[in-house]
Amino acid sequence: MVNYPNKQSNYNKKKISKSNRGMSFETIINETNEYYINNEKAIIHKKPIPIQIVNVSYPSRSAAVIKEAYYKTPSTTDYNGVYKGYYIDFEAKETHKETSFPLSNIHSHQIDHLRQVNFHGAVSFILVSFTKLDRFFLLETPVLINFVNRSLTGRKSITLEEFVQYGYEIKEGYAPRLDYIKIVDQIIEKRLNHKN
Amino acid sequence: MVNYPNKQSNYNKKKISKSNRGMSFETIINETNEYYINNEKAIIHKKPIPIQIVNVSYPSRSAAVIKEAYYKTPSTTDYNGVYKGYYIDFEAKETHKETSFPLSNIHSHQIDHLRQVNFHGAVSFILVSFTKLDRFFLLETPVLINFVNRSLTGRKSITLEEFVQYGYEIKEGYAPRLDYIKIVDQIIEKRLNHKN
Repeated sequence: MVNYPNKQSNYNKKKISKSNRGMSFETIINETNEYYINNEKAIIHKKPIPIQIVNVSYPSRSAAVIKEAYYKTPSTTDYNGVYKGYYIDFEAKETHKETSFPLSNIHSHQIDHLRQVNFHGAVSFILVSFTKLDRFFLLETPVLINFVNRSLTGRKSITLEEFVQYGYEIKEGYAPRLDYIKIVDQIIEKRLNHKN
Repeated sequence: MVNYPNKQSNYNKKKISKSNRGMSFETIINETNEYYINNEKAIIHKKPIPIQIVNVSYPSRSAAVIKEAYYKTPSTTDYNGVYKGYYIDFEAKETHKETSFPLSNIHSHQIDHLRQVNFHGAVSFILVSFTKLDRFFLLETPVLINFVNRSLTGRKSITLEEFVQYGYEIKEGYAPRLDYIKIVDQIIEKRLNHKN
């Protein structure tokens, strides 16, 4: 969404030539979303972090300064927006584990939120980064819910093999970095075929 | 979304019997959205206020305390969510004027955002409260854009008469307080008829 004309050209070169090691998953997604916006593909934003503001001071002639505030537990997922009129909603999580993704990484109210928006027809999912493997997966909400249900009596995580089998792997690219909209297209097509 | 079983029963009675005078527009919309969520009608949330956090302290054994932070200009609208699979996006504004709504009330990047999501098929609009008149209007983005364009060379506001003529008036109710989804239904129907 923003160009940085004043940044040294080395900065961008470095970013292009290097792999993602050290680049946070959030940065990868934000860059992807920026690409989608700039290329008029989709409008998807990260929501601001919810903060409980307790004390604000107004120094004379200058802007308000928040002097005391606390992080609130988010009641929704981090990302949402619009693609081809569809409501898109997802949560992004990374794990340093190499063989499975612990479900405890996702807040229960975020799972509730995904369940709710899914009920109302959203295209909703989680994006999971296995940082040590440089592998990325998209898992649709209904599939996630199945694993959440399983965790009530059994395994508390989703294995890498299960991501391979029940999710969509997204190969990393350059522009966009993580083209998850390609998978959203598949999901929409699947849905439309189901209707007919 | 939340029940307050411990609140005195008088509290609710008062709220029901009184008019909105003193009740902020934001509260009215939040109550409406809560109603929609509780009644499985739609999932629409207010986004958190964007904050630039500068300094956080971690007192021992307790949660993080934000010690210095600043309000950031929002780059999107305040409300978005899903209804029947459609992406819904709007900004809510109130005015104390009795005959017109000044366009300077809406940040230019919020107008850009509405323009963008409209382009991508969102059902997007502004909700405007004329607080002194207790009248509420929904104005779709394309209509808003026309008035924004007019303001470049002419009038910098939208008159009450124009809201009556080009917008949708929403009569206030009890549950939900401001049933804007009813208008969204009309917009969707109009759109579907247009396609056929």
